[in-house]
Amino acid sequence: MRASIQPPVVLVIAGNDPSGGAGLAADMQAITALAAHPAPVVTALTVQDTVNAYQVEAVAAELVRAQAETVLQDMPVAAIKLGLLANAAIGQSVAALLRQHRNIPVVLDPVLVAAGGAPLAEQALVAVYLEQLLPLATVVTPNAVESRRLAPQAEAAAGRAAELLARGAQHVLVKGADENTPDVQNTLFGRDGRPREFTWPRLPGNYHGSGCTLASAIAALIARGYAVPEAVEQAQAYTWKTLQQGWRLGKGQTIPNRRAMP
Amino acid sequence: MRASIQPPVVLVIAGNDPSGGAGLAADMQAITALAAHPAPVVTALTVQDTVNAYQVEAVAAELVRAQAETVLQDMPVAAIKLGLLANAAIGQSVAALLRQHRNIPVVLDPVLVAAGGAPLAEQALVAVYLEQLLPLATVVTPNAVESRRLAPQAEAAAGRAAELLARGAQHVLVKGADENTPDVQNTLFGRDGRPREFTWPRLPGNYHGSGCTLASAIAALIARGYAVPEAVEQAQAYTWKTLQQGWRLGKGQTIPNRRAMP
Repeated sequence: MRASIQPPVVLVIAGNDPSGGAGLAADMQAITALAAHPAPVVTALTVQDTVNAYQVEAVAAELVRAQAETVLQDMPVAAIKLGLLANAAIGQSVAALLRQHRNIPVVLDPVLVAAGGAPLAEQALVAVYLEQLLPLATVVTPNAVESRRLAPQAEAAAGRAAELLARGAQHVLVKGADENTPDVQNTLFGRDGRPREFTWPRLPGNYHGSGCTLASAIAALIARGYAVPEAVEQAQAYTWKTLQQGWRLGKGQTIPNRRAMP
Repeated sequence: MRASIQPPVVLVIAGNDPSGGAGLAADMQAITALAAHPAPVVTALTVQDTVNAYQVEAVAAELVRAQAETVLQDMPVAAIKLGLLANAAIGQSVAALLRQHRNIPVVLDPVLVAAGGAPLAEQALVAVYLEQLLPLATVVTPNAVESRRLAPQAEAAAGRAAELLARGAQHVLVKGADENTPDVQNTLFGRDGRPREFTWPRLPGNYHGSGCTLASAIAALIARGYAVPEAVEQAQAYTWKTLQQGWRLGKGQTIPNRRAMP
């Protein structure tokens, strides 16, 4: 007996983390757990463990595009998740591809720095995010550090989100796990002028791949038909559980347990 | 509350398939479903869909080794799964690494050809399998075509398995899904001279990633402490369910549903 309901396809364009904590492994696990099918396009290989990232080798932009195009021609893609893009050439190539598929929702996680602090992307990618990718993003999910890199002039989260919305993003989820607050405060800004605030108990320790998990969960839920605010809320609940049930498998940060059920 | 039982780590050394049907996505899903933690090392990027593979770009052997070494230094690896190695240089580099970690069980899936028929590895890799990797393999899982490529002199499956055992592999699972038999016959050969036969009802259609799913499932179960015959039997039961519950998400072969429960 075949399962009658086919999972929607989420095209993931991201880097590989050999620890399996972050990157494509995190994306594969989160999207699968939330009942969608992940199709992985590799942008970069990293040499990385649970402590930090030591090497980033970007893939040729044409090869990134060839991987993605073969999936888009073969399968009905219901959402696209962008993780590490590594450099401006890949960012431009991905933007050109997305412009040919404007009907597909895009979750943009603007990855710039590893959990351990090492830079993962070249500075020139920031301009590509601002000028070419934000106009195509359904949801963009910067943490506090990334939101300051993308909107350095603005002083508060609301101002930074307003800048990213002005660039063309439809929703901005500013995450606060990397802020010094007792609880974690995430805020979803949209075009209706009514920010939605989410508060999560801050868990002890540091986590490897929480941002990848959250962005992929949002993409999977959007692919399944959830409206953005509901997808963002449920994805946070799932991600929080994966952190709460996480394991310290290596010498560094805790790895989320993405088999956790919300 | 943290989960108290940590999953064992399975180091996966394999290629990426952007369709998510085979390769690293299949490995991530199968290993996660069977309650182990996958750590993915990328050997090659492919341009591939559910119909066939169109391009294989091997990663530099030193980068394959650097990815794997950082995981082995950071985490307790309980099993290693080898999928697509793509060329002789990568095969040699992986063999050198495995010789430094002889206590870790190795599941070797000798991938040579895509489900659609396209070659995935260079011919020179066959000699590296025979001379360097089989002596390090706990289980090797060739399909009929691969077993004939690895042991072209032998006439029957038993003779081919005997050759691979003589090369140093501890167990050989000769798979028969690609033979013209009414049921699928898989046979596990070991050093005790008593082959174990497994018969599975042949499912209609063609599948993309069944070999990756099976080898990764075996590795996950060995990592969890199962003896090889039990791991091989349970992994087949799981894989058969993933095929039975699979979906035709693209224009070609059916993709296994790796959330299936055995």
